[in-house]
Amino acid sequence: MLFQVEMHVRVPDTVDPARFDVLKVEEKARAEALQKSGKWRHLWRHAGQYANTSIFDVESNAELHELLVGLPLFPFMEIRVTPLCRHPSSIHADDR
Amino acid sequence: MLFQVEMHVRVPDTVDPARFDVLKVEEKARAEALQKSGKWRHLWRHAGQYANTSIFDVESNAELHELLVGLPLFPFMEIRVTPLCRHPSSIHADDR
Amino acid sequence: MLFQVEMHVRVPDTVDPARFDVLKVEEKARAEALQKSGKWRHLWRHAGQYANTSIFDVESNAELHELLVGLPLFPFMEIRVTPLCRHPSSIHADDR
Amino acid sequence: MLFQVEMHVRVPDTVDPARFDVLKVEEKARAEALQKSGKWRHLWRHAGQYANTSIFDVESNAELHELLVGLPLFPFMEIRVTPLCRHPSSIHADDR
Amino acid sequence: MLFQVEMHVRVPDTVDPARFDVLKVEEKARAEALQKSGKWRHLWRHAGQYANTSIFDVESNAELHELLVGLPLFPFMEIRVTPLCRHPSSIHADDR
Amino acid sequence: MLFQVEMHVRVPDTVDPARFDVLKVEEKARAEALQKSGKWRHLWRHAGQYANTSIFDVESNAELHELLVGLPLFPFMEIRVTPLCRHPSSIHADDR
Amino acid sequence: MLFQVEMHVRVPDTVDPARFDVLKVEEKARAEALQKSGKWRHLWRHAGQYANTSIFDVESNAELHELLVGLPLFPFMEIRVTPLCRHPSSIHADDR
Amino acid sequence: MLFQVEMHVRVPDTVDPARFDVLKVEEKARAEALQKSGKWRHLWRHAGQYANTSIFDVESNAELHELLVGLPLFPFMEIRVTPLCRHPSSIHADDR
Amino acid sequence: MLFQVEMHVRVPDTVDPARFDVLKVEEKARAEALQKSGKWRHLWRHAGQYANTSIFDVESNAELHELLVGLPLFPFMEIRVTPLCRHPSSIHADDR
Amino acid sequence: MLFQVEMHVRVPDTVDPARFDVLKVEEKARAEALQKSGKWRHLWRHAGQYANTSIFDVESNAELHELLVGLPLFPFMEIRVTPLCRHPSSIHADDR
Repeated sequence: MLFQVEMHVRVPDTVDPARFDVLKVEEKARAEALQKSGKWRHLWRHAGQYANTSIFDVESNAELHELLVGLPLFPFMEIRVTPLCRHPSSIHADDR
Repeated sequence: MLFQVEMHVRVPDTVDPARFDVLKVEEKARAEALQKSGKWRHLWRHAGQYANTSIFDVESNAELHELLVGLPLFPFMEIRVTPLCRHPSSIHADDR
Repeated sequence: MLFQVEMHVRVPDTVDPARFDVLKVEEKARAEALQKSGKWRHLWRHAGQYANTSIFDVESNAELHELLVGLPLFPFMEIRVTPLCRHPSSIHADDR
Repeated sequence: MLFQVEMHVRVPDTVDPARFDVLKVEEKARAEALQKSGKWRHLWRHAGQYANTSIFDVESNAELHELLVGLPLFPFMEIRVTPLCRHPSSIHADDR
Repeated sequence: MLFQVEMHVRVPDTVDPARFDVLKVEEKARAEALQKSGKWRHLWRHAGQYANTSIFDVESNAELHELLVGLPLFPFMEIRVTPLCRHPSSIHADDR
Repeated sequence: MLFQVEMHVRVPDTVDPARFDVLKVEEKARAEALQKSGKWRHLWRHAGQYANTSIFDVESNAELHELLVGLPLFPFMEIRVTPLCRHPSSIHADDR
Repeated sequence: MLFQVEMHVRVPDTVDPARFDVLKVEEKARAEALQKSGKWRHLWRHAGQYANTSIFDVESNAELHELLVGLPLFPFMEIRVTPLCRHPSSIHADDR
Repeated sequence: MLFQVEMHVRVPDTVDPARFDVLKVEEKARAEALQKSGKWRHLWRHAGQYANTSIFDVESNAELHELLVGLPLFPFMEIRVTPLCRHPSSIHADDR
Repeated sequence: MLFQVEMHVRVPDTVDPARFDVLKVEEKARAEALQKSGKWRHLWRHAGQYANTSIFDVESNAELHELLVGLPLFPFMEIRVTPLCRHPSSIHADDR
Repeated sequence: MLFQVEMHVRVPDTVDPARFDVLKVEEKARAEALQKSGKWRHLWRHAGQYANTSIFDVESNAELHELLVGLPLFPFMEIRVTPLCRHPSSIHADDR
């Protein structure tokens, strides 16, 4: 089951840069692991923004929640979730 | 070069249903042709909405414009365009 | 799997009242059937609004979409969908 | 009398983590107690958000206010309140 | 129990003026009756707007809904409802 | 002359609690004095919010300004002012 | 007593042009009369918009309301009212 | 003196297509004439939208207004005007 | 050439009060000097807000920019600029 | 390929002024270099705002992203990106 997730990262000026650098490294590792598992199917940067559009492929709303709140940068993210399904004009047989 | 395009279709109550049905058939045919050509890479319905998220793969902004204004339902669409690029945490080598 | 769905009905002044009355009767019948099936778990009116908050219990995003676009008043609705899951402070064992 | 309450928790980066952890434990205890009393009838997490949708069953606007401002995390919440009532298409005899 | 209700009247240019004049007469009669009954406690015009702020004193959310949807101009109104209660700094003993 | 004033209090996490407690005591005293003088005619809490709706009865815009900026919590308030007047359907002879 | 009033004129495509031309002539005459009377103190066009910013000098909120709803184009206007008063840094002795 | 002008064209479904086609031809002729005169310095389409960003070079706000309201499609446009000036980091000596 | 400028002052709780008091004194002196020069033609307080509406009379967009960024409180202001011109219904011969 | 980029700079009151001054010098140097290279084709200040409208001429979305995130003030900017293309009424042969 697919979900479109847009993440905008807001970094307050008061954050400790060293702490944030650690979080970014952890975030990258976590994102790569989830992509390899097939759960995080697409990940694109918004040109000119600290933001991305992602497509997640999960079993349930609950699994989506677990994946997102587990991201190291989650506390700095503004997130927009849109549940997706197969489009009648899609040439693919399922919603992927 | 990838673009995220979200299309929301607004159907005014004054539209002639027969005319609109024709446009929908044409829209479906056009969407399928563009998907087969590889220009329209993904097409997902927003669950519970007359709306979709699409990913286009085009040579330029100009080509994107030609494809979108050429859609039969374009006059009824509210469109949001987001230029995308490769994400540093993506496990893929290019922005696709 | 639960989804919160808020539906706001917008009735344009140009709509034929007799046609709309028929749609409302059909909507009521459909809503009752879906409630009896267990798919439409809660349905509350917003006080002072032509709007409701509903909780749907469905197998997938796709099923949610089918149920919503099949509502007779769907063309007049502005819909907001929020995927829900179990809350860690809930005293219930699942997300219902 | 039912009210839909949506709570979005905003945690400023300047908050002391230890203090916040204490508040979260107290919040969980309070939420569970109110659910057991029947005042807090439903509590669902928004998938991918630090937010919930709740349904409260109270005697009056005043009681709703007392319950909400008494929540340990209230100072960090953005709250949206919607008064609910029975829907004419509901298959239930009262607004529950 | 008090509710603040703001009503903004939107008159589409396609409405029949004679029909609308009838509705306005009926609205005025209904508003006066509800004020005399004590249910509609305050009614003020917004200066320079076709809009008002009203205070309703009702038994429940359900009664508020019945009163508002029963207004002849309800189909032309955009309505904002805010549940009120006694303020701790009020010099009055109840929420009235 | 009546004005509707909605005040939303925003308390930044960086504020000193002891200082804020003093301001709240002063605010309460000021609010009570202004109510007794008849200038602050109504004061209701928004259920579930740190916010109120108030009705002021003043001689002029200038007097309204003096009263509001003189409130101890004014620096923490987001304020919305709506000038009111008698409604043609009101059963009262003046705008009170 | 001064009020800033911004008027945005929205002309629906369904309006009869001849009827609207008559209203515009009447509006112009009314605006000029109110300016001569001193009630409508300033009237400026927003460059590139069918909109204006005006300053009214009236006795009360009620008088402001009477003047604005009496404008021939009032039914086509979206209006924003801001009550003004003397600024402490103004070099003028009153709020004019 | 430069102004950024963004024009979004909204075509209501009730407009007569033949009439609109005439207006578009006139609009194109007018746009070309103003570009040749040097008043309309830049004109770019927004990719995927019936909208453009333009840069006008005029003597005054009044001249800008005359040019914009004189456009044949002006009644169908939603317009955003931003006055521009030379940027301190620009490598050009004036605001052009 | 006239511009409407609305300034909303936002004072963060972290600002040093003594430093801010100095800025306010400087702001007042600057505002008075600009009013005497005729550049800052009108200055009105928004009743109940830390905000004003001003009318500037300048030679160009560039001059407007210089005046505004030179205000001591500029870093704390949210500013809205609207270019004005003579209204066809104004009884004055120019845009003043 | 052209992109319109609007940058609004938000400077939190907690930033160290000396650090920010360094960033501004670096930003200016970077902006001038990019203008000389032809990548940053236009740069205009918004009158009265700490904001600009820029036109970039780049090979791809990816190149646009690299240029923007490389700006020294990027962490303090709110950015709006609009992909542009040739307008059918433009008198120029390409989208420049």
